[in-house]
Amino acid sequence: MTDMLTNDMRTTGQICAADLPDIARGAALLGTGGGGDPYLGRLLAERVLRERGPVDVVHPEQLPNDAVVVPVGVMGAPTVIVEKPLAGHEFRGALESLGAVLGRPVTHVACLEAGGLNSMTPIITAAETGLPLLDADGMGRAFPELQMVLPTLDGISASPMAMSDEKGNTVVLRTVDNGWSERLARSATVDMGCSAAIALYPMTGAQARTALVPGTLTLAGRLGEILRVARAEHADAAERIVEQMGGTVLFRGKVVDVERRTERGFARGLATLAGTGAHAGTEMMLAFQNEHLVAQVAGQVVASVPDLICVLDADTGEPVTTEAMRYGFRIAVLGLPCHPRWRSEAGLALAGPRYFGYDHDFVPVETLAAAR
Amino acid sequence: MTDMLTNDMRTTGQICAADLPDIARGAALLGTGGGGDPYLGRLLAERVLRERGPVDVVHPEQLPNDAVVVPVGVMGAPTVIVEKPLAGHEFRGALESLGAVLGRPVTHVACLEAGGLNSMTPIITAAETGLPLLDADGMGRAFPELQMVLPTLDGISASPMAMSDEKGNTVVLRTVDNGWSERLARSATVDMGCSAAIALYPMTGAQARTALVPGTLTLAGRLGEILRVARAEHADAAERIVEQMGGTVLFRGKVVDVERRTERGFARGLATLAGTGAHAGTEMMLAFQNEHLVAQVAGQVVASVPDLICVLDADTGEPVTTEAMRYGFRIAVLGLPCHPRWRSEAGLALAGPRYFGYDHDFVPVETLAAAR
Repeated sequence: MTDMLTNDMRTTGQICAADLPDIARGAALLGTGGGGDPYLGRLLAERVLRERGPVDVVHPEQLPNDAVVVPVGVMGAPTVIVEKPLAGHEFRGALESLGAVLGRPVTHVACLEAGGLNSMTPIITAAETGLPLLDADGMGRAFPELQMVLPTLDGISASPMAMSDEKGNTVVLRTVDNGWSERLARSATVDMGCSAAIALYPMTGAQARTALVPGTLTLAGRLGEILRVARAEHADAAERIVEQMGGTVLFRGKVVDVERRTERGFARGLATLAGTGAHAGTEMMLAFQNEHLVAQVAGQVVASVPDLICVLDADTGEPVTTEAMRYGFRIAVLGLPCHPRWRSEAGLALAGPRYFGYDHDFVPVETLAAAR
Repeated sequence: MTDMLTNDMRTTGQICAADLPDIARGAALLGTGGGGDPYLGRLLAERVLRERGPVDVVHPEQLPNDAVVVPVGVMGAPTVIVEKPLAGHEFRGALESLGAVLGRPVTHVACLEAGGLNSMTPIITAAETGLPLLDADGMGRAFPELQMVLPTLDGISASPMAMSDEKGNTVVLRTVDNGWSERLARSATVDMGCSAAIALYPMTGAQARTALVPGTLTLAGRLGEILRVARAEHADAAERIVEQMGGTVLFRGKVVDVERRTERGFARGLATLAGTGAHAGTEMMLAFQNEHLVAQVAGQVVASVPDLICVLDADTGEPVTTEAMRYGFRIAVLGLPCHPRWRSEAGLALAGPRYFGYDHDFVPVETLAAAR
């Protein structure tokens, strides 16, 4: 299968508009249902790349030690981002505000999270500013709160942090810890209309090499290509993803209920799935807060954060976001292993099931699968 | 009476700890029930002045045109400020953050509002930073929202604006208008525990001379002295204030009910007063949002914002804040004319009764009194 995985980015060191559909599709998978609708972000990124030309991509190993690397993204409730499209210039606004506070120019844009829309926002930012884009992200997936990134485990501060809206308002935060950045930024996001461009976790090139997950954009492009090819070949996309990533197909079924609410800038909810095929007669409950958090079958946890719980449309193989999930969808639910640092004690304290209010310890998805 | 009005500040150009009781008392009157408890602010200011020596006071006419003047204050619900005392260093933090953003050092501290605690916070800031203090404020009273200052009428932007809490978090805002500064800062204040130090409306010396109300600290000291002397002489403090300021004594009575709630960082409520003496048999309703907004007797408006509605303890002549008002208090309610610029069309649009949701036009307190 490897010979099908050609991606210009890996040979040319650039991302152009033609690369975006695969990256967006793969990033939607890594987004585990969250990170915002990748479709709208892709349309905007395509327009910006067509206007301004391709973006240069740099692998973490190529970074100078004294590079000034800034991850960017959009913060807010995906349900709102669908209805209030991005303008594009808000990312430039956030990055320039942060550069002014740092007192030295930002040299590289990075991805805060690999998920959905936030795979596209750093590409938009790089194209808008002319800066090179780092092929790396802060989590290897998507998470609902901004302190939930691997740089937090390295003691890197989220602040100074800048945020901008499409109207031209900017907010710069300096906080005593990353939890306070989350708290203050979340309120400002709600005021700004439930979505805002953010630039945060400024770090050196040396820090970026150890604190970020390398190769995320390349991985997203590869996963998107696998899904595209599987669809063209009428193959089982879920199985092909598991072959690439490890993990397991947790469930196949039909959405029979989705209960959702937008609270404090988050899209929270619970989906109920009725099993089909080998899973007929059983039910899966999928809890989400922007991203899927915990999957249970017959009351037993089969996967939980920080492992990746990904939902694919059973017919097309396309990733399904939490905000798009609705009654009648036939889906496959995958459990994929997270980056190993998330499974450390500190990683689980930051983004494990107990942080999100669940009363169970984390067990790796592959261990749970082997026990069934 | 004039020969009793000696105040060191006016002869020495300094404020020392001994000046603070009169200034705080007079500022509590100008605060129209709001602006926070002046007692706690005074205790902190006294400690800081004793440690660091007196603060130099400059009249607006003495300002160089290119001075960098920054009004400071505390933002939040007075009911909370009573329970969460100020540390002092948060004002320095806000001022230094703003100076960094401006790219040039702040040369003068000014008062954002003349009311209560916020007469003391600029004194604390000046003492903590060693900067001279401008004898002027942004409104000549207190108001509940930060866009409600005379500089807004001159088109001066509230932002860049900095805010800090006692924990060490700082937020810097750049907004498209002063209403957005209020909105974003209010949410951050709630996150910070319902009180935050703010530094905003940076302006030149030339701007400060026309946009600010001159002599506010001197006036507060004089009013405080009048109240102190009236108490010592067992004289009618309410009448003496009206002699000095104009306006009228609206009502004398007893508090029979106070309904209060803390909403979105504001202390809102309604007090009901039963008349005594000449007002026996009538009732006054006093509506407040941090400050007193509208006073009605028998359903008729007798005073409303932007005029000053001030409450004095009938026995001691001490100003009573909205958060201290409670069942059984015997009080005198004064209606004093506001700064004339507040009575302009633009001033009334910014802080007139209709802005606060009341369905009546503003009529000057002296016109209403003459009609009765």
